[in-house]
Amino acid sequence: MNPEELETVANGGLLHRRALIKLSALGISAAAITPAQARETWMTHAGSAQSEYGSPSKHANIKRLTAASNPLAPEAGVSYTPLQALNGTITPNALHFERHHSGVPDIDPVRHRLTVYGDVKQVLQFSYEDLLAYPLVSRFHFMECSGNSFLNTLDTAQDLNVQSLHGLLSAAEWTGVPLHYLLDEAGVAKEARWIVAEGADASGHTRSLPVQLSLDKVMVALYQNGEPLRPEQGYPMRLFVPGCEGNVSVKWLQSIKVQKTPAYSREETSKYTELLPNGKAEMFSLEMGVKSVITTPSGTMQLGRKGVYEISGLAWSGAGAIRKVEVSADGGNSWAEAALQSSADDLALTRFRIPWRWNGQHCVLQSRAIDSAGHVQPTRSQALARYSAVGFYHYNGIQSWQVDATGRVQNVYS
Amino acid sequence: MNPEELETVANGGLLHRRALIKLSALGISAAAITPAQARETWMTHAGSAQSEYGSPSKHANIKRLTAASNPLAPEAGVSYTPLQALNGTITPNALHFERHHSGVPDIDPVRHRLTVYGDVKQVLQFSYEDLLAYPLVSRFHFMECSGNSFLNTLDTAQDLNVQSLHGLLSAAEWTGVPLHYLLDEAGVAKEARWIVAEGADASGHTRSLPVQLSLDKVMVALYQNGEPLRPEQGYPMRLFVPGCEGNVSVKWLQSIKVQKTPAYSREETSKYTELLPNGKAEMFSLEMGVKSVITTPSGTMQLGRKGVYEISGLAWSGAGAIRKVEVSADGGNSWAEAALQSSADDLALTRFRIPWRWNGQHCVLQSRAIDSAGHVQPTRSQALARYSAVGFYHYNGIQSWQVDATGRVQNVYS
Repeated sequence: MNPEELETVANGGLLHRRALIKLSALGISAAAITPAQARETWMTHAGSAQSEYGSPSKHANIKRLTAASNPLAPEAGVSYTPLQALNGTITPNALHFERHHSGVPDIDPVRHRLTVYGDVKQVLQFSYEDLLAYPLVSRFHFMECSGNSFLNTLDTAQDLNVQSLHGLLSAAEWTGVPLHYLLDEAGVAKEARWIVAEGADASGHTRSLPVQLSLDKVMVALYQNGEPLRPEQGYPMRLFVPGCEGNVSVKWLQSIKVQKTPAYSREETSKYTELLPNGKAEMFSLEMGVKSVITTPSGTMQLGRKGVYEISGLAWSGAGAIRKVEVSADGGNSWAEAALQSSADDLALTRFRIPWRWNGQHCVLQSRAIDSAGHVQPTRSQALARYSAVGFYHYNGIQSWQVDATGRVQNVYS
Repeated sequence: MNPEELETVANGGLLHRRALIKLSALGISAAAITPAQARETWMTHAGSAQSEYGSPSKHANIKRLTAASNPLAPEAGVSYTPLQALNGTITPNALHFERHHSGVPDIDPVRHRLTVYGDVKQVLQFSYEDLLAYPLVSRFHFMECSGNSFLNTLDTAQDLNVQSLHGLLSAAEWTGVPLHYLLDEAGVAKEARWIVAEGADASGHTRSLPVQLSLDKVMVALYQNGEPLRPEQGYPMRLFVPGCEGNVSVKWLQSIKVQKTPAYSREETSKYTELLPNGKAEMFSLEMGVKSVITTPSGTMQLGRKGVYEISGLAWSGAGAIRKVEVSADGGNSWAEAALQSSADDLALTRFRIPWRWNGQHCVLQSRAIDSAGHVQPTRSQALARYSAVGFYHYNGIQSWQVDATGRVQNVYS
């Protein structure tokens, strides 16, 4: 097959999302090959036995990238999901991003209690065992830190990979008790408007949520991707608030206080508040904006040949489902529609894919997501205009990856 | 709320799948509680820092159960997924069941090749890198060993847990190259009817598949639940044949030969062939039957109190999607419909759930799945009648869990 037969659908070599790709089109010659198989060394002796708990291949070498907020307190910090090495729409638990304010507590589930109190008819206390007996729900949802991608708000584009730039983003199947079961049972007072969730870590991480939001889609999560939560994700229980900035999904959840006003806790005053261009502050801006990022090819990768590649990435929105992702290979002048895959659940990660033929010349790759509420992912300058110059939370501008003539991929502002 | 207000929908205390459960209904008294929180020991000092690769809580203590087929060759055997400890619809990769015929090879993906040869126009050879450039698809699918649940074909019901009885069942999001891309490119000869897949393990595990099946839904899988395949699941690449017995999803895939007849390999003659009641053998019976199992409460569990529990379990079928799961709490005399949750993909695991009030008396819990092709899960005696008395593959009879008056749950034949 002649690679030239593949019809482009936008500038820069974007091919139809259902194009049929062959080895010759990829730019690889399929040399005449002898079918006789040499027995590789690994076929000459038995391998290792089955195990109680598996681990990844040493050849794959995939890790979170960790960073401490303060060198004197390494237990406060983050770890980034290696998006460049992953595919599909969920993140294995061992690679889900982390953000801890005072490290990961080692909680004995037998001693742990969840107390619901405040403006309620009846104070209630639940053990882990109690919660396991409640009706559970399972849903696929993304989680993103409100500080994700903040490096792209800096004046100079950092030459980093997608993990460092956008790796405070992960997704899983979360299983837990719908919070409204517990609130209904406690009996929320008519005039109450907020719930305040507190974690059992040493920072006593505390965040406020409107009751209305809590009644809608929030759960007390007990399982992640099928297994009990990992300690670093809140074992034995965490709040999970789909579509909202990660830090309100309070880990190691130990209490929910119902009240008339927000708590105005340290984590919603000193942090996680956005300064607007007019000097006022926006608080409780919980919903994450519509966003997408190409994960391959992406920053610091090296294209080894001309020819066809699959452009692949992730799209998500705190407002609902992803309806469409468009990809540009000419810095935003022309766009082509990508193929989408995701679970049926709203507020999940969507994988997008489109084949692309690289002609060996300089180009800029971009993706743009559109969600079910009609929101279109903003350009970098549109996204920056939303907040004051010192703002760095909730950045969702279009990512530009430059491919130069040597095939090197680099973060640029376009 | 009075527990008696919860209306039953079938005998033995089955409640409506959307019943609103409260602590009092569970059979737990919500004592007056002081909201003041004592600071637990884990809140008095910072926890551990973020990490490169996470691990489960030591308190959760969840493991696969391993068993060698031959004590002299421990690398041939199985490991079982701990279904009783999991929830949701997918299995974490570290807990996916295993079945190895000669252990897990340690394959260097740079040296590994996949060769497509035989009755083709052009022999092709693909590196791992080549395959990563192809258009990929991601789908949620279950995988079940054809020998799963064989203990229930024995004359005496074994008093074991659901892991030991049914744990050769797992599910994941699989991402890979649709096999038809590679076959189309090689050019399958008109008269060819079968493909023969060979693994690069020391057993050279080899299975035959009808070409038609391969063109339909089979992929060369590269990722599982987002990350590259684990070695024990075929790293760097495996065949994945949705809905079919696990052993045809050949791990460590190194060649696909296209031919007119099946290979009649060791693994499809000495094993994985079913003897019928009339003395004939059924070969290439690949599709897994419609099936379900209650995972909680399940074998060897102990109910600690009277009151409400969630009955929860898994349902699946090699013929398509699960349309309905019915649950009985009186040994199959009356049935109630459970709530279902699953991804949008066919051939995935479906989680079913229904609340149930245990009155403290002897009873037998069962579940029965119905799939999109209209197949109804058979009773144990119906399932046994399909094959000869020595048959133990493809057993999909209804599981009966007896709860005795002390609350102990036990595998019984009902």
